[in-house]
Amino acid sequence: MPFSFPELVHPIVQAPMAGGPSTPELTASVCEAGGLGFVAAGYRTAEQLQADIARVRELTAAPFGVNLFSVTDALVDRVALDRYAEKLQPLARRYGVRLGEPRFDDDAFESKLALVCAERVAIVSFTFGCPSTEVLGRLHANGIAAWVTVTEPGEGEAATHAGADALVLQGVEAGGHRGTFEDIDGRGEIGLLALLRLIARSNELPLVASGGIADGPGIAAVLAAGARAAQIGTAFMRCPEAATSAAHRDALGGQGPTALTRAFSGRRARGIVNPFIDEHNAYAPTAYPHVHYLTAPLRSAARGRGDPEAINLWAGQAHALVEQRPAGELVRQWSADASAAIEQARRNLMSGD
Amino acid sequence: MPFSFPELVHPIVQAPMAGGPSTPELTASVCEAGGLGFVAAGYRTAEQLQADIARVRELTAAPFGVNLFSVTDALVDRVALDRYAEKLQPLARRYGVRLGEPRFDDDAFESKLALVCAERVAIVSFTFGCPSTEVLGRLHANGIAAWVTVTEPGEGEAATHAGADALVLQGVEAGGHRGTFEDIDGRGEIGLLALLRLIARSNELPLVASGGIADGPGIAAVLAAGARAAQIGTAFMRCPEAATSAAHRDALGGQGPTALTRAFSGRRARGIVNPFIDEHNAYAPTAYPHVHYLTAPLRSAARGRGDPEAINLWAGQAHALVEQRPAGELVRQWSADASAAIEQARRNLMSGD
Repeated sequence: MPFSFPELVHPIVQAPMAGGPSTPELTASVCEAGGLGFVAAGYRTAEQLQADIARVRELTAAPFGVNLFSVTDALVDRVALDRYAEKLQPLARRYGVRLGEPRFDDDAFESKLALVCAERVAIVSFTFGCPSTEVLGRLHANGIAAWVTVTEPGEGEAATHAGADALVLQGVEAGGHRGTFEDIDGRGEIGLLALLRLIARSNELPLVASGGIADGPGIAAVLAAGARAAQIGTAFMRCPEAATSAAHRDALGGQGPTALTRAFSGRRARGIVNPFIDEHNAYAPTAYPHVHYLTAPLRSAARGRGDPEAINLWAGQAHALVEQRPAGELVRQWSADASAAIEQARRNLMSGD
Repeated sequence: MPFSFPELVHPIVQAPMAGGPSTPELTASVCEAGGLGFVAAGYRTAEQLQADIARVRELTAAPFGVNLFSVTDALVDRVALDRYAEKLQPLARRYGVRLGEPRFDDDAFESKLALVCAERVAIVSFTFGCPSTEVLGRLHANGIAAWVTVTEPGEGEAATHAGADALVLQGVEAGGHRGTFEDIDGRGEIGLLALLRLIARSNELPLVASGGIADGPGIAAVLAAGARAAQIGTAFMRCPEAATSAAHRDALGGQGPTALTRAFSGRRARGIVNPFIDEHNAYAPTAYPHVHYLTAPLRSAARGRGDPEAINLWAGQAHALVEQRPAGELVRQWSADASAAIEQARRNLMSGD
């Protein structure tokens, strides 16, 4: 018996954005406005995550979610990794940093899982793969709903089988990392509307739609296509509550095209095209999180200088729409605009009756 | 002063599908059901097009559109073309055919333009580029509305400037050729929902949304996102009125993934992945319609044998949803389902009030 979908004033979920933009303040603001906030556990230690959860609870009594990475240790091509590191050496010298040590880690999965179970957060969502039935069972035993991010129908079936309570459908439009279980070119690169319809026709779990949604009509669209809620990331990145770096904020809302690339992390992710992508995309190996650690000092140095040329400027395809307003205002505005958009669509369809 | 958008009983446009599937019978069936049918002029002679238009007019008194290719003669890499022809030789021998002569032609643009002006069809849409203001002016002078297919915001601005009366927004989900003005990797590969919102915010022309729409909730979604109508291609390809080849019909509605490829025509197009794409995609040159003519005998031979391995199985990302039913039934069903989907979305949004 799956856990029921949370009752939300507005059918809007704040996407967890690991690696900087997410903050407890952003999570709480969205919750307080009547949406569903998420804490991004990725790249945090279990202790930091515990502090984040505690801080959200200081700011709101509303339920919220925590997103965990479920990364598996796939075989990587060490020779390709070494070659990639060589290619990055001139840039490292230019920024005056040493490249990081490429390595695997599972983002402290077990400690974080134990923590969210102990904390009994309302929802735990997973990205990069589907945990085992046993892991989802541990969440259920602690009264926690389990959501799994999927990018194609087969992943949706696997997650449903494993016991997921809801699916987060990530369209190819989405900013940041693809949640695709296996990082293979072309795999899980489906437009959000098509993905929604392909999964909705044979799956009765609640579906949360994400990817390229940045305003009220976009939310209305995914609800019309059968989603229970819209998950939005990029469009929260310029909120005052977000910890997005200055150079990243400046790039959002502009006309820059985005692309999928493994150049920053070794896993396909969508970001605004910049010189780092232009130069290194072609030969970046499939090796996550190895390449993430390799490039971390470079990206950090670039962020420190406010230099967008070597930052992973994660952004969804609709980033030109992103506004600089408090998260709560956005949630309320989007919901009102979504209602107006639905009314307009209803009139369009009725005119033919 | 732009031409007004046609009054439609159902906000559904049948996408022109050049190269086989489109027939006057399909066009007329959609029109008779209260949608808007299109005649695909591509790859037809002006005489054949004239006969197609006459046949549609025998079958329906409703207005319909004609789609013209607006191809420009870009520089192609002759060496790459020759190498590609060499790579295809073994397959040509296997099928017992000679490869075609790779060449440019403009699909008889001027004759077809003169014809549609003389025939005073209701709407002419363009694919592969935006015609000049002068060409659009000729249509207007003959009482014809001009629609232009676009795949990114910049193309939308150019078409608006040139005098288009409506924009057909083609999301990356769409089957068949990308309408992108310049065929460059990554250019115009935006998910439909994001594309709609990016263009709708600054453009007041009526927008027709296409790409991966194959059912009523999909239609409802694009209307909610601001489209005046949904354009649907793939989901009409298994209709009895369509002339889709048998092997192509069989592949539609299955689970096969799709990919963008230049292997068949020298221009990015989306089809169901088959051995021809697997083998030849990596080195297929950018040379349209040269490669189209080069591979035509191969594709024709494969179709004749009912062999899907070397056919261009054009299909949008939602092709698994495609049903085998008469076009008029589909139009009516989709419209009813779209209304129900809008009603469901309205209830979802209201529950928070």
